[in-house]
Amino acid sequence: MAQKSPLAPERFPPLPPIAGVEVAGAPCGLKESGRHDLFVARLAPGTAVAGSFTRSLCPSAPVDWCRRILPGGRARCVVVNSGNANAFTGKAGDRTVEHTVRGAAQLFGCPADEVYIASTGVIGVPVPADYIASKLPALSRRLSADAWLDAARGIMTTDTFPKGAVRTARIGDAEVTVAGIAKGSGMIAPDMATMLGFIFTDAAIPAPVLQALLTRAVDDSFNSITVDGDTSTSDTVLLFATGQAGNAVLTTRDDPGADALYAAIREVALDLAQQVVRDGEGASKFIEVQVSGAVSDDSARRVALSIANSPLVKTAIAGEDANWGRVVMAVGKAGEPADRDKLAIRFGDHWVAKDGLPVDGYDEAPVAAHLKGQDIRIGADLGLGEGCATVWTCDLTHGYISINADYRS
Amino acid sequence: MAQKSPLAPERFPPLPPIAGVEVAGAPCGLKESGRHDLFVARLAPGTAVAGSFTRSLCPSAPVDWCRRILPGGRARCVVVNSGNANAFTGKAGDRTVEHTVRGAAQLFGCPADEVYIASTGVIGVPVPADYIASKLPALSRRLSADAWLDAARGIMTTDTFPKGAVRTARIGDAEVTVAGIAKGSGMIAPDMATMLGFIFTDAAIPAPVLQALLTRAVDDSFNSITVDGDTSTSDTVLLFATGQAGNAVLTTRDDPGADALYAAIREVALDLAQQVVRDGEGASKFIEVQVSGAVSDDSARRVALSIANSPLVKTAIAGEDANWGRVVMAVGKAGEPADRDKLAIRFGDHWVAKDGLPVDGYDEAPVAAHLKGQDIRIGADLGLGEGCATVWTCDLTHGYISINADYRS
Repeated sequence: MAQKSPLAPERFPPLPPIAGVEVAGAPCGLKESGRHDLFVARLAPGTAVAGSFTRSLCPSAPVDWCRRILPGGRARCVVVNSGNANAFTGKAGDRTVEHTVRGAAQLFGCPADEVYIASTGVIGVPVPADYIASKLPALSRRLSADAWLDAARGIMTTDTFPKGAVRTARIGDAEVTVAGIAKGSGMIAPDMATMLGFIFTDAAIPAPVLQALLTRAVDDSFNSITVDGDTSTSDTVLLFATGQAGNAVLTTRDDPGADALYAAIREVALDLAQQVVRDGEGASKFIEVQVSGAVSDDSARRVALSIANSPLVKTAIAGEDANWGRVVMAVGKAGEPADRDKLAIRFGDHWVAKDGLPVDGYDEAPVAAHLKGQDIRIGADLGLGEGCATVWTCDLTHGYISINADYRS
Repeated sequence: MAQKSPLAPERFPPLPPIAGVEVAGAPCGLKESGRHDLFVARLAPGTAVAGSFTRSLCPSAPVDWCRRILPGGRARCVVVNSGNANAFTGKAGDRTVEHTVRGAAQLFGCPADEVYIASTGVIGVPVPADYIASKLPALSRRLSADAWLDAARGIMTTDTFPKGAVRTARIGDAEVTVAGIAKGSGMIAPDMATMLGFIFTDAAIPAPVLQALLTRAVDDSFNSITVDGDTSTSDTVLLFATGQAGNAVLTTRDDPGADALYAAIREVALDLAQQVVRDGEGASKFIEVQVSGAVSDDSARRVALSIANSPLVKTAIAGEDANWGRVVMAVGKAGEPADRDKLAIRFGDHWVAKDGLPVDGYDEAPVAAHLKGQDIRIGADLGLGEGCATVWTCDLTHGYISINADYRS
């Protein structure tokens, strides 16, 4: 494993038990290194599920499966392996999915369409059909309410640290908890390093309402980060709600408490997503890109992603260079309404250009000081409307090239 | 200047005189290095012009000017400076444009709306309004029919070699010549390195027909290359036709000889565009991406650009790694119709995956040998239809990071 990212949090956060959720993670032999490569969660009867998947039009077999069963809205377990993505494996891949699902359904006594799965790791190499299923009985004996760190380790591929997050919310008199784990660090040789997130709550909320909350939360978190603009075939975020917190069931998005639950889900998703960026390949700086003054929020988001995905902006930040010209370039290429003569650019809180011109009496010293830090903020105000958006990325360094070019698969 | 790209052609090609065109290039003090930074072409009365410009919505002042006068369809001169892009310079930039245009119009005895201009170099730094105009009289005394190398040098910024190309075509009994120069090498600190191309022919062809030929030729050449996916505010391609070759005037796209002229224009544009890729920042390999079997040519092109712009594909080629999984990923993220189980991928002439699976008995040796070369071909067949497209790019290496991150502006 590569050295831990300099942007990693100090430690894995203490995740509390979630009523109705038991987790386990352990090595099962898919990784040659002998590291953890299997994660299972058993979920109480009545657990609702929501999901969000890769936009890739060549998704992996496990993504196809989850999409197919998601309309059922119920989940009793989730089985995730790392070390092999089961992608581009044709009929053999489908058979592995079938066997894994059947094995888990038998073990946990539930219908097949309540078994969720995900796979991440090398591609184009089939896993023997019953291999994962055969490892489930032993792993299920290790299920416990607090094995979160083992769980987070079980889904890592080239991640340099395990990722977890937790928040609480009040729904009426009940306190509900939202906890999740994630993996991802950009795309790494020889794998297509996938972004996976699994979030659990004890709140009582039916699947359609849960889905509405997740879709919005993912837009503001996992879909608002980028490391290299590349999209995995296997990206998956699943949100499970066991309904054991004792809250009055949230039957619509407008019920009292739904906003509080949404806020907790969004914060967990955002915390996990930002940890993925902080583990970006070769990252030495964490970058927040804020766009305001766009004609709409959607437009602002596209401009922000254009800035965050620009190799020239990302290398400038790596070089601690206040190169606002590259930000202007990235605004211009986004294809969204923009007016050169209304554009303003800042680094941190320091405006470097306004109304299409360098600011009068521009003082580089505070800007240079900001760029020497680890947490960088780039702002662009388009001066056209009220639309705004924030996205997160990391810089582009020699480390990225070394990881992705210097070593052969 | 950086070391010459390892992918550079052996030498600048001998460009012949084009009847009705005189060119000159020389240093005028905009570049601190004292290198060539001004290029002027004088064009015979009656010269028709066509143009293609950046899609950036924050274009530079010179691009705005050219777009404004292009409907007139006539040109008597073109003035291009390097060393300063006159971009993000507000009203001061507009004044520099006005003075330059007025000075050239007086000098060459033509209306202002027949003076074409372009600028490339540092941004956000105004040029004194009459600076360029004041240098024109001296430079105009050096105009000649064969100063093409000086011309090509006059438009270079961070290019490591001057770029020129020439082709001929028959229209009836007349032989016409098409010759051009270009600059560009991706986007380089501290500039937004612009792509500029200036093509000249002695063919007799009115502006609207010329524009139709240029638009199509640019789509197949300058718009089919990518170094880092970043788009300059100043990209400009201009095509001038002096009408002195003695051919029967081509009044429509269907006239006999129009196809031959189109082929020559397209080949010159493609040759120049490929030279830009061969001068890509840090490039060590030239990459051709061919997509076939798409539902349409447009769809194929978007898939090809998705592959060519993927940092993971480009770093894999830099590492001489036959990582077809990354090609699959890039196909999937393009957002175009694709079917995982019909996809085939090749490197050079060697298929590595077909029908969504690694090929039976895959032999890596010939693939590895192909990837060790300098000219790499990646093929993807989507297996859906007849659409195809080809685009060109270069690999992504430590050199790109060094150029763009290691040196401060």
